[in-house]
Amino acid sequence: MSADSSIKLPIVKVHDDEADHSLDSLAIEEPLEIRIGYGPAENRQIKNVSITMRTPGNDGELAAGFLFTEGIIRQREDILSADHCVIACAENKENVIQVDLKEDVIPSLNNTERNFYTTSSCGVCGKGSINAIRTVSIYDGGVGENHVSDDRLYSLPDILKRHQQVFADTGGLHASALFDAAGELILLREDVGRHNALDKLIGAALNAGMLPLNTHILLLSGRASFELVQKAAMAGINIIAAVGAPSSLAVQLAEEFKISLVGFLRGRRFNIYTQPQRILLSKYEDSY
Amino acid sequence: MSADSSIKLPIVKVHDDEADHSLDSLAIEEPLEIRIGYGPAENRQIKNVSITMRTPGNDGELAAGFLFTEGIIRQREDILSADHCVIACAENKENVIQVDLKEDVIPSLNNTERNFYTTSSCGVCGKGSINAIRTVSIYDGGVGENHVSDDRLYSLPDILKRHQQVFADTGGLHASALFDAAGELILLREDVGRHNALDKLIGAALNAGMLPLNTHILLLSGRASFELVQKAAMAGINIIAAVGAPSSLAVQLAEEFKISLVGFLRGRRFNIYTQPQRILLSKYEDSY
Repeated sequence: MSADSSIKLPIVKVHDDEADHSLDSLAIEEPLEIRIGYGPAENRQIKNVSITMRTPGNDGELAAGFLFTEGIIRQREDILSADHCVIACAENKENVIQVDLKEDVIPSLNNTERNFYTTSSCGVCGKGSINAIRTVSIYDGGVGENHVSDDRLYSLPDILKRHQQVFADTGGLHASALFDAAGELILLREDVGRHNALDKLIGAALNAGMLPLNTHILLLSGRASFELVQKAAMAGINIIAAVGAPSSLAVQLAEEFKISLVGFLRGRRFNIYTQPQRILLSKYEDSY
Repeated sequence: MSADSSIKLPIVKVHDDEADHSLDSLAIEEPLEIRIGYGPAENRQIKNVSITMRTPGNDGELAAGFLFTEGIIRQREDILSADHCVIACAENKENVIQVDLKEDVIPSLNNTERNFYTTSSCGVCGKGSINAIRTVSIYDGGVGENHVSDDRLYSLPDILKRHQQVFADTGGLHASALFDAAGELILLREDVGRHNALDKLIGAALNAGMLPLNTHILLLSGRASFELVQKAAMAGINIIAAVGAPSSLAVQLAEEFKISLVGFLRGRRFNIYTQPQRILLSKYEDSY
């Protein structure tokens, strides 16, 4: 993350009735407007697709990840360029990013309302109707022989903690981390919005040509919501481990996409909510 | 909260390599579509204003709080009724709520996009443009002689914990709690979305005719984001204490609205980010 992911502000620090003036690091939260440019050169369109409250840094990845996990684009080759706004943006240049699509790419914008619903923390709300709430992933999470051992799972939160620098400074950021089958940390992204952290991570993987992520493990620093599972499914992820609790709908969606969902991963404990066959238990391999 | 805020599902519980089949309580997460009915009887309009992922329960409060904190309505008297959908809702009846406004009330829907941006966790995204991001509260947080002692602040998280029943069951819910000047718990609402928990609380206070809440203390179970401070400001709240970290923009907005913002309230510690004059320190009353 860039240095401007946090800022130091003067505070009063109270501890056991003692008060000191002090400086405290805070996670920066700023709006980001995501625009796409598309259509033939003679009739180029520009459209706002989202405004999200995010921590600055990795904005290009965030935009790419958002467009991909929301199904607006289908592959990295759809993107020509992603740059902070240079025209019609006298102010707030750094808070507007425009993703230009190739001329022959038709973005999936069937429903304008869909995209207006779709914001930082509400990936699912973009579906325009409760009945059509599930995005169809282009990948099948069930494919592949991915698995992870219990001992490997136990080790992941500590690795995340050692690398989560802005959180260490501010105590205020969510993280998404991607590990390979050997437990090696491949990607780590942080943001004030948990959905942005995951969009940044998936955008980085998309840009690097790494999708589908069906031989990896996704670690979430907090709770597992429906939207996070939906975004993971779009990237072909089939093992999700969360330090916090999952919601009921997150579990339902993980089951539907055949994703192994682990929650409450703390110390030498965790719960397996779905698809336990990918979690290898050293002592009880035959327990289910 | 109603009994259907959590659900029991079969899981595999792993602890130190031991695995057991078990039942686990999960916080329920379901979409809620908020509609308003408005206009004269001869030309009544119905409009979708938001879809949010929420924990079922207190839906009427959630809708009222959302409409108020987003500035779509200005007072509780604007609301005629709030009911789950009865027409054109063969399915998902319990996930659609319609708030009917009095005939002479003109909802503030200047910008359709505004409302489509506005979702569960992105109250701020509804402003349609980064430049117009701040909602103007009808209350002035600076008014009143509100204050709280350090010892009172230390006590609040424990009171919250004792009452946060669904969290105790599921480990998966955010809470907003309202205390009076004597440290008495007045209102507590829980939700998978922190913004929904606060909207429910403010909706309940609105319905009870309690606004502005400028003699109270708002306690947030997690982090303090820009959106939460914005919603609190709309309800006239002038002391916010968060168990977690605030973001940079939350601090800026609290300063702008003259709200006292406390973060990292844990044990006998906390940080004061803005307007420290309302926080009385037993030992160092003259320290700032």
